[in-house]
Amino acid sequence: MPSYNAPIRDQKFVLNEVLNVAQLTQYEKFAEADTDTMEAILEQSAKFTSEVLAPLNVVGDQEGCIRHDDGSVTTPTGFKEAYKQVVENGMMGLAHSPEYGGMGMPGVWHIAAGEMQSAANMAFAMYPGLTNGATKAIEIGGSEEQKQTFLPKMIAGEWTGTMNLTEPHCGTDLGLLKTKAVPQADGSYKITGQKIFISAGEHDMSDNIIHLCLARIEGAPAGVKGISLFIVPKFKLDEDGNPGERNPVSCGAIEHKMGIHGNSTCVMNFDEAEGYLIGEENKGLKVMFVMMNRARLDVGMQGLAQSEVAYQNAAIYAKDRIQGRALTGPKNEDGPADPIIVHPDVRRMLLETKAFNEGARALVYWAALLEDLEHVHEDEAFRQKCDDYLGLLTPVIKGYLTDKGMQTTIDCQQIFGGHGFIEEWGMSQFVRDMRIALIYEGANGIQALDLVGRKLARHGGRALMTLNGEIDAFLKENGDNENLSEFMTGLKDAKTKLTEATMWLMQNGMTNPDNAGAGSVDYMHMMGLTSLAYMWGMMAVTAQKAIDGGSNEDFYPNKLITGRYFVLRMLPMMDAHLAKIKTGAEPLMALEAAAF
Amino acid sequence: MPSYNAPIRDQKFVLNEVLNVAQLTQYEKFAEADTDTMEAILEQSAKFTSEVLAPLNVVGDQEGCIRHDDGSVTTPTGFKEAYKQVVENGMMGLAHSPEYGGMGMPGVWHIAAGEMQSAANMAFAMYPGLTNGATKAIEIGGSEEQKQTFLPKMIAGEWTGTMNLTEPHCGTDLGLLKTKAVPQADGSYKITGQKIFISAGEHDMSDNIIHLCLARIEGAPAGVKGISLFIVPKFKLDEDGNPGERNPVSCGAIEHKMGIHGNSTCVMNFDEAEGYLIGEENKGLKVMFVMMNRARLDVGMQGLAQSEVAYQNAAIYAKDRIQGRALTGPKNEDGPADPIIVHPDVRRMLLETKAFNEGARALVYWAALLEDLEHVHEDEAFRQKCDDYLGLLTPVIKGYLTDKGMQTTIDCQQIFGGHGFIEEWGMSQFVRDMRIALIYEGANGIQALDLVGRKLARHGGRALMTLNGEIDAFLKENGDNENLSEFMTGLKDAKTKLTEATMWLMQNGMTNPDNAGAGSVDYMHMMGLTSLAYMWGMMAVTAQKAIDGGSNEDFYPNKLITGRYFVLRMLPMMDAHLAKIKTGAEPLMALEAAAF
Repeated sequence: MPSYNAPIRDQKFVLNEVLNVAQLTQYEKFAEADTDTMEAILEQSAKFTSEVLAPLNVVGDQEGCIRHDDGSVTTPTGFKEAYKQVVENGMMGLAHSPEYGGMGMPGVWHIAAGEMQSAANMAFAMYPGLTNGATKAIEIGGSEEQKQTFLPKMIAGEWTGTMNLTEPHCGTDLGLLKTKAVPQADGSYKITGQKIFISAGEHDMSDNIIHLCLARIEGAPAGVKGISLFIVPKFKLDEDGNPGERNPVSCGAIEHKMGIHGNSTCVMNFDEAEGYLIGEENKGLKVMFVMMNRARLDVGMQGLAQSEVAYQNAAIYAKDRIQGRALTGPKNEDGPADPIIVHPDVRRMLLETKAFNEGARALVYWAALLEDLEHVHEDEAFRQKCDDYLGLLTPVIKGYLTDKGMQTTIDCQQIFGGHGFIEEWGMSQFVRDMRIALIYEGANGIQALDLVGRKLARHGGRALMTLNGEIDAFLKENGDNENLSEFMTGLKDAKTKLTEATMWLMQNGMTNPDNAGAGSVDYMHMMGLTSLAYMWGMMAVTAQKAIDGGSNEDFYPNKLITGRYFVLRMLPMMDAHLAKIKTGAEPLMALEAAAF
Repeated sequence: MPSYNAPIRDQKFVLNEVLNVAQLTQYEKFAEADTDTMEAILEQSAKFTSEVLAPLNVVGDQEGCIRHDDGSVTTPTGFKEAYKQVVENGMMGLAHSPEYGGMGMPGVWHIAAGEMQSAANMAFAMYPGLTNGATKAIEIGGSEEQKQTFLPKMIAGEWTGTMNLTEPHCGTDLGLLKTKAVPQADGSYKITGQKIFISAGEHDMSDNIIHLCLARIEGAPAGVKGISLFIVPKFKLDEDGNPGERNPVSCGAIEHKMGIHGNSTCVMNFDEAEGYLIGEENKGLKVMFVMMNRARLDVGMQGLAQSEVAYQNAAIYAKDRIQGRALTGPKNEDGPADPIIVHPDVRRMLLETKAFNEGARALVYWAALLEDLEHVHEDEAFRQKCDDYLGLLTPVIKGYLTDKGMQTTIDCQQIFGGHGFIEEWGMSQFVRDMRIALIYEGANGIQALDLVGRKLARHGGRALMTLNGEIDAFLKENGDNENLSEFMTGLKDAKTKLTEATMWLMQNGMTNPDNAGAGSVDYMHMMGLTSLAYMWGMMAVTAQKAIDGGSNEDFYPNKLITGRYFVLRMLPMMDAHLAKIKTGAEPLMALEAAAF
C-alpha cells in the first residue's frame, strides 16, 4: 500500500527560509501567526495526514460513494470519522475570519497544510476544500445576516458547503446556464434546475450542506450578465438557526468517474428549492470569481500534491526494487541485482518530478503569501503588485502545475513497471485522481486563454513588466555569485525567451486573436517554467547562503543538485514552446472543421 | 457511448499509395495477396470492429473478468461470442503459415486489421493477439512434431495461447527467474513456479490454452544463459491430439488493473505441470526475442490505435459541443454558442493527435512491410537492410508511439471537459487502457536503452547510416518541389539534429555509459520524430502527386495541412530533446540515492 509523509523539511525551507513568512506577524491580522504556533499546526497535520488520511485513500477509491434510493449518500468507510477528526482538531476554521469563529491563519500556512491533505487523500480533502470555498464566498459576498447565520456553523465544520455551477449543456460557458430563480414575497427565491459534477453535493458527514448555486432570476438579461448567486441549504433553518425542514434540493445520481471515487460527485436537482440571494442581482459571477481564483491556486496545489505523493512512493520503490545491473557495473555486488535507482533513466523520471515538485511548492506558497500580503500590507503600491502578480500567476499555477504534475505522476507510475498498472500498488489511483485537476475550476486551455487574453494585457501589461523588473533586480543582486551562475543564466535565458514570446503574442494577437489562442498553452508553460526558474533561483540563493554559513545539513547541497536538474534538463523546453508559438494560428486553422 | 470507424481511407492511402504494398505479390509467398483480396478482408474487419467489438469495449471495462473458486475465468458478456466470430471469419489464421492452415497474409495487411481490433477494443484484441504471438513462437522455434501438434488448432483459433515470462521478483531482468523445469524420463519436463501479469492466462473462449513458459532447467547456468522455453498446455493432449487430462497450471488470481479490464491478467501457478521444451536447452530467450520484436511493433500499434479512437470521438465532440464563442467573433450566429472546434487550442489538441496518428500509422505499416520484405526479397543486401531498419525502428515504434500516444489520448480526453472524466463517455477508458502499452513488452525506458545501447552501435552503426543515406536520397529527389519545401526542410533539419545527438552519444557514451542512459529516452523521441518526419515527407510527396495529377479529393490537401502541422508544431521538440541529451549523466547521477 502506498504511503505518504508530509515533506515538512522542504515545506519549512520554503516557508521560513525562502519566503520568510514570519514577516506576516508584523501585521495585526496575523500577529498570532508566529512560526512556532504555525509549525505546530503543520506537524499535527503531517501526523494526521500520514496516519489517518493516507490509509483511507485506497479505501475511498475502492468503495466509492453510494447513493441510496432516498437520495442520501454514504461516503467510504472511515471518511465520516476522519472528517470528525478534522473538525475536532479545529482544522476547518484555520484560515477563516476570527469574527465568525475562525482562527485567521495566513493563507500561506493554510495551503501548506492543504497540500498534505490533498497528497494523502485528494478525494477526502475536497470535502473540507469545497466547504472552505463556499465559506469564502459567503465571507466575500454575503450580507451580515447571512454571515451570522451560516459562517459560524461552516467554520466550525458542522455544516459543509458546495459550489453549483455546471449544467449538462454548460460548463466553461456559464452564460448559457438555465437554472432559474423566482422571487418570493418573503425575499427568498425558488430555485429550479439541474446541476452536474457537484463535488461533495450530498454525503453523510455533516448536519447540513450549504449549496452555493448560480441561477438566473426570471427576467434577467441573457448571458453572463444575468447570473445571480444563491445560498440553498439542504435543510432550511428553523427559528433557532438549526437544520429544520428539508429543502427540495437533492442528489439525483452519483457520477462514475475515472478517479476521486471517494468524493461524491453529484447530479443535483433543484425543485423549487428555497434560496437566498448573495449580494446583488445579476452580479453572481463577481463573487464566484473571487472565490474561484483562490480555488484555482488550490487546484494547482493538487497537481503538486499528487506529484509529491507519487514521487515519494516511486523513490521508495526505486531504491527497493532489485532488477538488472548498473550500466557502469554492479553496485550491489553481493545481491542478485542492483536497485533500479542506479539507472540514469529512472533517476531522470524521479528528478523531473522532484525538481518540479520543489519548484511548484515554492511557487504556490509564494502566491499564497502574496495573497496574504495583499490584504495586510500598508503600502498601496505593494498591494497592487500582489494583485497584479496573482492575476498573472493564478492561471499559470492552475494550468501548468496540473499539466506538468500529470506527466510527472505518470512517470512515477512508470517506475513501478507492471506493478504500476495494478491497483493495489496505488500508483494508478494517483494518476486517475490527478486527471480531474486539469479539467475542473476551468480547463487548462481556459486558464491559458485567461492568461494570454486577459491577464497579460491588463493595465498595459503592468504585471509582467513589474515581475520582469523584480527578476532583473534579483539577477543583478546575485549575478556575481559564481556558485549560482547556472541558476542565474538559466533564469535570465528563460526570461529573455518569455519576453520574446510575449512580444510576439502582443504583436500578432492584435491582428488576429487566434494567434494568441494558438500559442496560449505553450505560453502558459513558458510562464510556468520561468516562474519555476525564479523560484529555483531564490531557493538556490537561500541554500547557498546556508552552506556558506557553515551548515552541514545535506538538505542544502541536495537542493542545489535538484535545482541544477531543473535548469539543465527542464528549461530546454522553453525553446520548443517558443518555436511553436511563433508558428501562429494558421497551421491550426487551415483545416476545415469537416475534415477533422 | 464512444464509437469507432476504421480509418480505412487513410489506411489504404498508406498501404497502396505511399508504400505500394502490392509489390509483395511478385513474390510467390504473397502471390495471392492482391489488393482486392486484402482490401476485402480490411473492409470486413472494419465492419466487424465497428459493429461488434467497439460496442463491447465499455462492457468489458465495466464487467471485467471473473475468476471462480475452481480457478476458471469468465470473460465479459459478449466476448466469447465475438471471439467465435473472429474464428468463424477465419481471422485467426490470417498471417500464419498455410502449411498449418493459415492464410499467409502479409504482415503489413495483418497489422492494418490489427489496428482496427486494438482501436475498437484493446482488451479483447489481446486474446487473439497473444495467440498470434504464441503461435509465432512455435512456428519459429518448435520441432516439426510440435508444429503439427499445436499449430493447426491455434491457427484455426480453437486453442488460444499465452506468454509466461514475468515473475513477482523479475520482469525486466529475466535472468532472475526462478520457475524450474525438471526433466522426465519421457522427454517432457515438470514445470513449477509462479508467473504474474499473464494476459489471457485463463478464460472461457477456447477448448485449450497453450502456455509458452520460460523456466530454468535444473542445473542450468544462472542468469539469462540458463533459461529455456516450454509449451505447457492447459489440457494435456490425448492420443488423438485432443484436450484430455488437466495439466496442473492454473489461474491463482486475476489482477485488478487500471485498464484493459476485459482481458484476464492472471497470476499463473505451475505445479509440476507437464511441459515440452521448445528448441534447445538454455536457448529459450532467443525464440522469445524473435517473437517479442514483432509483439513490440504490435504494442506500438496499440499506442496509435488508442490515440486514433480517442481522436475520432474527440473530433465528433468538438464539432458537436456548443460552448462559448470564437475569438474572432461568432461562427454559429443563430445558435446560442459556437462549436468548440472554432478554438485554436482545441484544434491544437486534435491536430497534434491527428498528425501523430497518421505519421505513426505510416511508420508502423512501413516496419511491417520491411518485415515482409525481409522474408521474401531476392536481394540479400536488401534483406539485410530490412533487418537493420527493423532493429532500429522496433524500440522506437514501441516506445515513442506509446509515450506520445498516451499524451494525445489524454489531450483528446481533455477536449471533453468534465465529461472526459466520467466513465460513461468512454474517454477515460481509452486513457486507462492505453497506459499499459508504455509498460509491457519491455517498459519504454528499456526500449530506449535497447535503441541507444544495442541497436545504434550494431554493425558499426550501419542501420542508421543506411537510413540516413536513404533520407538524403529522398531529400535530393524531392528537394526541388517548392510545394513541399516545408516538409523537406523539416526532415533535413530533424536528420541533422538526430545526427548531432547520435554523435554526442557515441562520443560520450564510450567514456561513461551513463551518458547514453541519461539521454536514451530523449534520443528515442528524436528518432521517433525524425522517422515521422520521413513518413510525412513520403506522404506529402504522394499527396502532392495526386493533386498534381488532378485529383479533386479533399483527402490530399487535408493530408498536406495535417503534415504541415507536424512539421511546424511538433518538430520543434527536437531542440529540447537535443539540449537535454547534451547535459549528459552528471545532473542525474549527482544526487545520492538516499537523498531521493
